[in-house]
Amino acid sequence: MSEWDTRKEQASTWFKTLRNDICAEFEAIEAELADGPKADQKPGIFERTDWQRDNIDEPNESGSILKGGGEMSLMRGRVFEKVGVNISEVHGIFADEFASRVPGADESKGAFWAAGISLVAHMQSPLVPAVHMNTRMIVTSKGWFGGGADLTPIFPDDEDTRTFHDALKECCDSHDHSYYEKHKEWCDRYFFLPHRNEARGVGGIFYDYLDSENWADDFAYTQDVGKTFLSVYPEIVRKHMNRSWSDEERDYQLVRRGRYVEYNLLYDRGTQFGLKTGGNTDAILMSMPPEVKWP
Amino acid sequence: MSEWDTRKEQASTWFKTLRNDICAEFEAIEAELADGPKADQKPGIFERTDWQRDNIDEPNESGSILKGGGEMSLMRGRVFEKVGVNISEVHGIFADEFASRVPGADESKGAFWAAGISLVAHMQSPLVPAVHMNTRMIVTSKGWFGGGADLTPIFPDDEDTRTFHDALKECCDSHDHSYYEKHKEWCDRYFFLPHRNEARGVGGIFYDYLDSENWADDFAYTQDVGKTFLSVYPEIVRKHMNRSWSDEERDYQLVRRGRYVEYNLLYDRGTQFGLKTGGNTDAILMSMPPEVKWP
Repeated sequence: MSEWDTRKEQASTWFKTLRNDICAEFEAIEAELADGPKADQKPGIFERTDWQRDNIDEPNESGSILKGGGEMSLMRGRVFEKVGVNISEVHGIFADEFASRVPGADESKGAFWAAGISLVAHMQSPLVPAVHMNTRMIVTSKGWFGGGADLTPIFPDDEDTRTFHDALKECCDSHDHSYYEKHKEWCDRYFFLPHRNEARGVGGIFYDYLDSENWADDFAYTQDVGKTFLSVYPEIVRKHMNRSWSDEERDYQLVRRGRYVEYNLLYDRGTQFGLKTGGNTDAILMSMPPEVKWP
Repeated sequence: MSEWDTRKEQASTWFKTLRNDICAEFEAIEAELADGPKADQKPGIFERTDWQRDNIDEPNESGSILKGGGEMSLMRGRVFEKVGVNISEVHGIFADEFASRVPGADESKGAFWAAGISLVAHMQSPLVPAVHMNTRMIVTSKGWFGGGADLTPIFPDDEDTRTFHDALKECCDSHDHSYYEKHKEWCDRYFFLPHRNEARGVGGIFYDYLDSENWADDFAYTQDVGKTFLSVYPEIVRKHMNRSWSDEERDYQLVRRGRYVEYNLLYDRGTQFGLKTGGNTDAILMSMPPEVKWP
């Protein structure tokens, strides 16, 4: 087994482990709900669907060859109105148009391998922030990690924002003291809606092309981003989930979700990447909020 | 006054006249509603908001200079859940990146003028089709018309589809016997969601870069597209608006509206053009459905 094959296997295994841990934790939160407008509903559990690309050696409609597959985990619960946790491991050949924009893909003649985990949670309560977390490993003639986590409260709460950022800063600092500032700023720049001149949420961290020449370090950082997410987000959810909310707060939540949709469809590179390489539409658009208003 | 100045004025005046006629007709429909789940609500009337770009000679964030303005007419009614009818007349200088993709804009050094009317209606009843109509005139170093109308029923009804297409065919045929086939096909190709491998609706007509070297003919055709829309769509609305619907039908309507959002944000050139040239976000995104589900 080549060095990169071992790395791919390690990363894939990690994304699956993290998926399992997150799903278990989110189901525990569902079970714990004790009060508020949805407490009389049944706790949600994840439904898992796996998908496999037809392993065809011909380019699909996008001009890329895409093989592999993934697993979608979707829960429609009483705390988590809709949360999707997807893992995937795909490989193939990028269409030329695409290859020219991906590092190392010219040298690999378009060949790529990618695995990752991607999570978006839209919450029943407008008092509980929505969240996004994604980490991935990509290999062409180069190999790197990317990802991050960012929080989208409907009604930003300074303490939550601080809790979230402090946890990410601690995670970053334990790997490289330059990471937090750099990756926080990248997140602010990336999750921004120019047509609204507004940020998508209160930020977090985002990084890409992380290839420090020490693969084990980069992998450890990527693992820690996932673990940090898994410790800090549930804390924020539990803090607010038993509170009641008003119809006006709910309505405002549905309007703010519109911004999430605008961002994901107009700007999100993951969405564009996925849809343009002929990826799994259901998995890619699992991030769409369950209910939205543009009044 | 130069020939093109006269043409611009004629086109602008027409778009305003058409807007007035459409709004009057839609308000008449609101008043006529006699039965169905929403008949006890107050008939809607249009609210009009005008907007004017700061007339600044510096490029905005998109790199383009954009001047001029428009009027948005928005009605939230008992038949029309949300309908926006926008007219605008803008001019300026395209950013280089954009100019290279617009006919005649290299020769005009990016200078352009554009006016048009744009309408999207999302209906209360899932038994009444949503609809889109837009016509516009654009001038760079060349001048042309574009636009069209297309129907998006939630539950397609063969008779409605035939009524809509027959009216458009008659309109096309009265100008040029090649138009209907060409512009119908263009519509089918254009309003298509590759990631879903499905059409947005049941089609209609779409045309662009119409510059037959007889401006008066092109203008007359564009006017007739508007008039045809104004005669045929109200007929379809009136046919179904007094019927009742089920919660399941309503729910399916909200899901189908998600496709509309996906199309408009992922593919619609008008949306992309508008947002990327620093256009009026409220006017551009007035086409978003009032309520949507991605369950």
